[in-house]
Amino acid sequence: MRVGLLGCGTVGTPVARALLEEADTLARAAGARLELTGVAVQHRERQRAVDLPPHLVTTDALAVAIDPSIDIVIELIGGIEPALSSIRAALGDNKAVITANKELLAGPGRDLLDDPGSDLYFEASVCGAIPIVRALKESFAGERIDAFSGILSGTCNFVLNEITERGCSLDEAIREAQRRGYAEADPTADIEAFDAAAKVAILGRVAFGVPAGIEDVARQGIRGISRSLIAGAASQGLVCKLVGGGRRTPNSPELWVKPVFVAADDPLAHVTGAQNSVLVETSRAGRVVLNGAGAGGDPTAAAVLGDLVSAARRRAHASRLIPCVA
Amino acid sequence: MRVGLLGCGTVGTPVARALLEEADTLARAAGARLELTGVAVQHRERQRAVDLPPHLVTTDALAVAIDPSIDIVIELIGGIEPALSSIRAALGDNKAVITANKELLAGPGRDLLDDPGSDLYFEASVCGAIPIVRALKESFAGERIDAFSGILSGTCNFVLNEITERGCSLDEAIREAQRRGYAEADPTADIEAFDAAAKVAILGRVAFGVPAGIEDVARQGIRGISRSLIAGAASQGLVCKLVGGGRRTPNSPELWVKPVFVAADDPLAHVTGAQNSVLVETSRAGRVVLNGAGAGGDPTAAAVLGDLVSAARRRAHASRLIPCVA
Repeated sequence: MRVGLLGCGTVGTPVARALLEEADTLARAAGARLELTGVAVQHRERQRAVDLPPHLVTTDALAVAIDPSIDIVIELIGGIEPALSSIRAALGDNKAVITANKELLAGPGRDLLDDPGSDLYFEASVCGAIPIVRALKESFAGERIDAFSGILSGTCNFVLNEITERGCSLDEAIREAQRRGYAEADPTADIEAFDAAAKVAILGRVAFGVPAGIEDVARQGIRGISRSLIAGAASQGLVCKLVGGGRRTPNSPELWVKPVFVAADDPLAHVTGAQNSVLVETSRAGRVVLNGAGAGGDPTAAAVLGDLVSAARRRAHASRLIPCVA
Repeated sequence: MRVGLLGCGTVGTPVARALLEEADTLARAAGARLELTGVAVQHRERQRAVDLPPHLVTTDALAVAIDPSIDIVIELIGGIEPALSSIRAALGDNKAVITANKELLAGPGRDLLDDPGSDLYFEASVCGAIPIVRALKESFAGERIDAFSGILSGTCNFVLNEITERGCSLDEAIREAQRRGYAEADPTADIEAFDAAAKVAILGRVAFGVPAGIEDVARQGIRGISRSLIAGAASQGLVCKLVGGGRRTPNSPELWVKPVFVAADDPLAHVTGAQNSVLVETSRAGRVVLNGAGAGGDPTAAAVLGDLVSAARRRAHASRLIPCVA
């Protein structure tokens, strides 16, 4: 099975390395060899922690997406274009597509989630290595999902943690997050909770089956959280966390993200650093909680590769399962 | 798609009720109507919390398993026979099979897990509603899974908790667990950790890809745990938990279940009552923890129904995906 990779940055690099260096292991897992036959990058000359065979590399993402020899496309460019056109073109050609692009799926590409027949995988778009999308889509596929909530922004969690532990200011905490690679040079998407709101929209779409975009999420970021607010709460045994969630209602589901105070013995209070934690409540399963690394190259690559193997197996299995009646 | 149900007890009853009372919801989720067309029970006259149409009910499990009109068989009889013969017959007919039978999959039916082409689903055999099997098989399918561990016996966890909290004896705690329906009349399988060891064997098989049965698990139950041992540990800030796990080694993986003392601030110390908690460590995903209801009719039924919808979707998808070439 031939694989095209769009984007070779923080997540794309460990994905490419796995495809090149763990080919035998992945072949055993997938039931078919997964051959990397095209890589679209923005800057051909950039130094990368992976040796890409030069003849595979192009700067034309769409060309890889529509290459008829390619079966599975992995989109890790981020942003809207050329990611969206490439995904649409690949799905239109009946390719499987794997993406980590939350901005797209909670924005102009949200309709991609509406076609149950399209072979689109997006575990990596929400909460890194935590298998929350697969849990909602498959494990609880027979359930009425009533609500989900949790810490969905590792960056904000780290920042709030820094203020709590070190007594620093919000801006100092953001600079420390940037220094460690948790926050972007422009931290707006994290700090204003656009990033967490996109995750809530995607989970809301999967959990409640209604179209949802980022503007359907009641959103409040952590820009207004001060050192003194956090210190005052701590003196009452409370911890400040940015929490996002969704709840089924008789009308449209409620979707929200906002800073909240939780008791020091609340499980969310113990989610530290850049970890994420998601609670799901369903009709029969009760309350199930999933914790893990919510971001980062390797954890997100784990989610991409899990989707890749699943997509390859599904295609291999489908071709074996159905007898051909003329 | 036609569904046969083998067994209509604690788990089978909510599964049958969902098939009969939530048919439209399940059809939307699965992309095909799921029609319950046969139910095998041991005692035809037993009172059940579900109205089974009398013409569907039989006492012959194998007859349902081999009924050529049935596409998907759900095995919830438990024990070895007639469950094993029925599963083998159904898989041999290219039916999808869903089972919650850990005794079988860690015992004489373990070879069923070795055929990657067979359409066998067994999320419900380990840790009730916690989606650990799907996480290991699919979400981390691109990963080297290094280790897993956790609280896998809700019954033992409840018993140890009772001794810790109430200062009662082991036998008193077991009687309370029986009174609440957590422990069987003969509590041996739980208390001697045969039950937890079966879960470790199944997870070990999925995580490390090696055949594993219950006898490959180094097993120590909680029969020897006394009130005074627990009180002594508590005075040092330690909590007693029955923990099971597995670890990849250069040779055969280590698989084990035994009572251990954990620090009071260890996340496992906070897993109370009949809850389960499983930690997975992989090469790229890091440490991911899944918590939830580890047993009980409704949570286990949630896992069965998730597998049922997945199986139906896979069949519906396969028939759509592959063009028919004569």
